[in-house]
Amino acid sequence: MRALVERIRNEGRNLGQGILKVDGFINHQLDPVLTAAMGQEFARRFSTAGVENVTKIVTAEVSGIAPALTVAMAYGVPVVYARKHRPITMPNGFYSSQAPSHTKGGVIQLMISPEYLQPSDRVLLIDDFLATGKTINALADLIAQCGATLCGIGCLVEKSFESGRQQLAHLGAPIVTLAIIDSMEGESIVVRDPTEE
Amino acid sequence: MRALVERIRNEGRNLGQGILKVDGFINHQLDPVLTAAMGQEFARRFSTAGVENVTKIVTAEVSGIAPALTVAMAYGVPVVYARKHRPITMPNGFYSSQAPSHTKGGVIQLMISPEYLQPSDRVLLIDDFLATGKTINALADLIAQCGATLCGIGCLVEKSFESGRQQLAHLGAPIVTLAIIDSMEGESIVVRDPTEE
Repeated sequence: MRALVERIRNEGRNLGQGILKVDGFINHQLDPVLTAAMGQEFARRFSTAGVENVTKIVTAEVSGIAPALTVAMAYGVPVVYARKHRPITMPNGFYSSQAPSHTKGGVIQLMISPEYLQPSDRVLLIDDFLATGKTINALADLIAQCGATLCGIGCLVEKSFESGRQQLAHLGAPIVTLAIIDSMEGESIVVRDPTEE
Repeated sequence: MRALVERIRNEGRNLGQGILKVDGFINHQLDPVLTAAMGQEFARRFSTAGVENVTKIVTAEVSGIAPALTVAMAYGVPVVYARKHRPITMPNGFYSSQAPSHTKGGVIQLMISPEYLQPSDRVLLIDDFLATGKTINALADLIAQCGATLCGIGCLVEKSFESGRQQLAHLGAPIVTLAIIDSMEGESIVVRDPTEE
């Protein structure tokens, strides 16, 4: 997606250790026009990939919520965001899966209440980054625990050098990313639009 | 706002100790149509209150992000969401304020990077709940630390019996809420639309 790629070229910063700072438009500040356009672009790309009859969008708090909401707007279906800290409103019997935290260290627990995800659901899984694929795999595990069907995986930014795509191949779902980072060395961030190949 | 009030009447649950469960449309699952309509309703109500020239929306992760994003869409200005856990992408020199957590216990720290909030900014502060007002006061403190101007405060659900509105009066900003809970006793939740008085 050209607008996202240009934004990363202009504002993205390599902080080293594989960390790409995109706080100005993804992780701390959000541009509503770009965020809405990204939701529409996911819908367009998933349609091209043959994904149909989506009933729910699943993501993880925190940074997944905004893009997942605009995808949900494009489809007119609800978003469920997996919680990382169990609120007192979540009843016992929730689904739970674990993943290492990429930007904070340690292990995070992801939780979804069975109230909001049913075996009949056809799910698009949306997140901000596809890096090692471990968070996405944990979310896919929650969807599998519910008995729901994973129809597609969408991430704003893919870091191809961390091989997350290969780690998700076993899920058998189409993977759509809007910008691909092939390398980050010093101040050089090599980023491309996967639709312009 | 009638649609939100009806949703609370139909799906809200009193969990006791002043906790209203609205996980089906605010805190765990989101309805994109309702969320977008709430953003537009805030813009309409703030316009009626004489709020003009808004340049930024500020909220707190997690549950503030979705309503803040749809308000941002209505105004065409960015959202900044205060972080509760400092990510490694946040540089030193960030603004910080503390508030007690209503649903998780303990104290939360709210942080905003000065990269994304300037003294020239005219800010709408958006959050899911107005209860005791302590989280909103902490966010207002961050906005004041930045030297930005607080133009208005908007919350989806106000629990009038926790007196948050009085706790925010010193800020001198118009306060817009879309549904007001006057009491919760057992299974009875008394909720009203503040525009239908």
